Amino acid sequence: MNQTTASTWKQFDELQRKIKSYHEAVALMHWDLRTGAPKKGAQGRSETIGMLMTEAFRLQTSEEMGNFLTYLNSPAVLAELDEIKQRIITVTQEEYDRSVKIPPKKYQEYTELTALAETLWEDFKEEGDYAGFEPYLAQIIEKTNEFIDYWGSKATRYDTLLHMYEPDLTVEKLDEVFGQLRDRLVPLVEAIKEASQEPQASFMNQLFDKAQQEKFGLFMLEQMGYDFEAGRVDESVHPFEITLNQGDVRITTHYLQDDVTFALFSSLHEGGHALYEQNVSPELAGTPLGEGASMGIHESQSRLWENFIGRSLEFWTRYYGDLQQHFPEQLKNVTVDEFYKAVNRVENSLVRIQADELTYNLHIIIRYEIEKQLFNDGLSVSDLPKVWNEKYKAYLGLTPPNDSLGVLQDVHWSGGSFGYFPSYALGNMYAAQIVNTMRKQLPNLDDLIAEGNFAPIKEWLTEQIYKYGKSQKPAEIMKRVTGEELNPNYLADYLEQKYKAIYGLS
Amino acid sequence: MNQTTASTWKQFDELQRKIKSYHEAVALMHWDLRTGAPKKGAQGRSETIGMLMTEAFRLQTSEEMGNFLTYLNSPAVLAELDEIKQRIITVTQEEYDRSVKIPPKKYQEYTELTALAETLWEDFKEEGDYAGFEPYLAQIIEKTNEFIDYWGSKATRYDTLLHMYEPDLTVEKLDEVFGQLRDRLVPLVEAIKEASQEPQASFMNQLFDKAQQEKFGLFMLEQMGYDFEAGRVDESVHPFEITLNQGDVRITTHYLQDDVTFALFSSLHEGGHALYEQNVSPELAGTPLGEGASMGIHESQSRLWENFIGRSLEFWTRYYGDLQQHFPEQLKNVTVDEFYKAVNRVENSLVRIQADELTYNLHIIIRYEIEKQLFNDGLSVSDLPKVWNEKYKAYLGLTPPNDSLGVLQDVHWSGGSFGYFPSYALGNMYAAQIVNTMRKQLPNLDDLIAEGNFAPIKEWLTEQIYKYGKSQKPAEIMKRVTGEELNPNYLADYLEQKYKAIYGLS
Repeated sequence: MNQTTASTWKQFDELQRKIKSYHEAVALMHWDLRTGAPKKGAQGRSETIGMLMTEAFRLQTSEEMGNFLTYLNSPAVLAELDEIKQRIITVTQEEYDRSVKIPPKKYQEYTELTALAETLWEDFKEEGDYAGFEPYLAQIIEKTNEFIDYWGSKATRYDTLLHMYEPDLTVEKLDEVFGQLRDRLVPLVEAIKEASQEPQASFMNQLFDKAQQEKFGLFMLEQMGYDFEAGRVDESVHPFEITLNQGDVRITTHYLQDDVTFALFSSLHEGGHALYEQNVSPELAGTPLGEGASMGIHESQSRLWENFIGRSLEFWTRYYGDLQQHFPEQLKNVTVDEFYKAVNRVENSLVRIQADELTYNLHIIIRYEIEKQLFNDGLSVSDLPKVWNEKYKAYLGLTPPNDSLGVLQDVHWSGGSFGYFPSYALGNMYAAQIVNTMRKQLPNLDDLIAEGNFAPIKEWLTEQIYKYGKSQKPAEIMKRVTGEELNPNYLADYLEQKYKAIYGLS
Repeated sequence: MNQTTASTWKQFDELQRKIKSYHEAVALMHWDLRTGAPKKGAQGRSETIGMLMTEAFRLQTSEEMGNFLTYLNSPAVLAELDEIKQRIITVTQEEYDRSVKIPPKKYQEYTELTALAETLWEDFKEEGDYAGFEPYLAQIIEKTNEFIDYWGSKATRYDTLLHMYEPDLTVEKLDEVFGQLRDRLVPLVEAIKEASQEPQASFMNQLFDKAQQEKFGLFMLEQMGYDFEAGRVDESVHPFEITLNQGDVRITTHYLQDDVTFALFSSLHEGGHALYEQNVSPELAGTPLGEGASMGIHESQSRLWENFIGRSLEFWTRYYGDLQQHFPEQLKNVTVDEFYKAVNRVENSLVRIQADELTYNLHIIIRYEIEKQLFNDGLSVSDLPKVWNEKYKAYLGLTPPNDSLGVLQDVHWSGGSFGYFPSYALGNMYAAQIVNTMRKQLPNLDDLIAEGNFAPIKEWLTEQIYKYGKSQKPAEIMKRVTGEELNPNYLADYLEQKYKAIYGLS
């Protein structure tokens, strides 16, 4: 690097880190709002979040940033930079190009609105009050539509949103992949409905002491290698992972007294996200590459720990005894095989985050279709509960008794995260494909899980995925790790094999 | 207001609120660092705090702010403004004049250093590792001295620091007031030492379940009128109150298993601070006047609830039965009178925050003298533990067995709060003087306390003190409320009367 490039890079890096600082402050405020911040402070807090995000936004779209990029993103200068720095420039340029189109005032209004709505959503959900929530949601959608206008519509308006969470993902691709998946899963779900043998699960309907659940959940996080000195675990209405900085990667969970597995699987899930963030290469920490590659890849890591490991027979062979020790009364007459089958019982249900591994994908498809309608077909906000309920009836044969268990169940829309839901199903597909490769490279994978020896698994994931952070795109990662593009058949194969065994299907 | 003034004021107000937003973010980060933030994130966090404080500082000292003040703080314009706005200008001008003298780079270094040191202090204290802490403390003192150079020394260098926490307070005044107080309290402590009757307190040396302590502490906060919808209660090594915004006034406490009163009295203490902040007039919220008048006045409100109410016979007449219900085994053979006397036992001790109401003042005088020596007489940081221990021997007849119980016991110095400690003794004196007036205006004060009817007391304090926020100076408040200047005799009278009764002295 010549001297001008070196000194420009240094200033650019400082500006980046300053922007990161704002994001850390805002992340802490979001964490706080969802882990017990007092209600009466929410209005003031949302103004503060709005102000800080606006400042970060102002820096991101500043003339200074524009000038750095003009200089650094020229072919001659790029040629002087190493691959990591080149990728930092690419990512920053994309972010800059997107952000610079939004008027700062609009941006501030949006962040204040979503911060407030996320907080209020908790109450609206609890009370099942969609009418109360509707005006906030309507405003968020209106503002999101304005943003799409500023950014410019891709193939469809909804494509523009998808691309933000999963680079290069399109409605066309998603329709195709979801179509393939549905064509293989629907017959499976049907076959299961007709199956003669059904897992026994009545023992699940007991009370499980929260303190014991908490103890077991923390034990499992320890087992999987979550670094408690670089994070903390709290409770919130909806479990989440949030990264403040690389030494502070927090997760939350939510305990249900009458469901011993919900908090546990959500801990494994958020723990999977956290392992990814805690193990990004330290040289990327604090740069725009010091985070997960995309929402879909992130979700593949949470799903991998939650389902592919946590809902496997090997896992429970190792840990069921421990769980029994925490709940000796409730589980005394239940064998590990019965328990394994019970946590893999397929049952059409209303609540996404409580759904089984198989029908979960239908919950996502419902949301995907609704979001497409909202942005591409002008579905009105007041019709949302109706459409929601119709789709649940059509896809899962169920009608929510109230909006708490229906359209109000997820936090995402209150935070403006439209286009995010498909990541969950993408994550399942990525995870199946990645596990398929891992199984070849760690031939004793099942034994490792059955021994609770997760270190080699964490190590493999770190080497293959975690350490790269955002320095490669999702498609590049999949190609490098698995040798091929996203292929939904791995997930379908895995689910077929697993559930045929559990339900005794041929 | 003419149009130019109105529009300038609007812009000035927006800038103020923006600065407040930074302070809210930083306050949350400090709260978080002390209530469970992971260790590995502390370094990154302190850089973030440094960056945000530097931004706030940059705004506070900006040309824009300078221009607003030049315009608004001119006699002709001031005459157009109401009293509140005039006072906002005065306070902001003082802050501006002080801040503009510090180079932003120096300021950033200082905030990063103190944020880090505050976090590390917890470990150093736990390990009693003064050698580990010393280099941080030395740097903080060095930087504080640089700041004094920038600000310019008042009568003495230490005066400059005192003034920051208590406007117009001087070493001269403090020497005088502390002298008067000492002259009356020392004979009282002596007499108590010689007293033939001594409160029985061996029942205090039992284990008191933490969960029960927590329940009782929260109950008492409810009783005193702490608004839980505008705050939350957590645990930390050292209890504190922190205001994020007027709807979010948090307190922490610390439970000791072998001391049933520590957490309770610290809750009443921090609860007193919080009542003040929660009840500042809403029209002042978000302005520079939307907080307590000074550290000393603030402390008067915490002391008032902790000691004047919480350590009174009337208080325990009302609440001892409740406490017994929480600890039926431990307290079954203890009468209310015995308990009252036990919580007012005078005993020379090593730890300030566990000291009784009377000797507490000696702990403050020790710190005051040490801080004077540090800044006025060149006491070296490496000699601090020695001097600390000598003074404890001289004033309280005790030698700390280790630095955890000695020079490392308080968080203040790690945060750079030199000149703060005297506020605690000032608070005692203010409180005694305020209670003397309150007793005249609420003649049934003792009955109200004995009934647990705190609403009229909170109401009186709101009308007399809380609602004014920072719109009056400490001396103005004392004059308006009590009709006279600070007079240490009220505290001395109160303590004499109380302790003579308890110890059966004539």
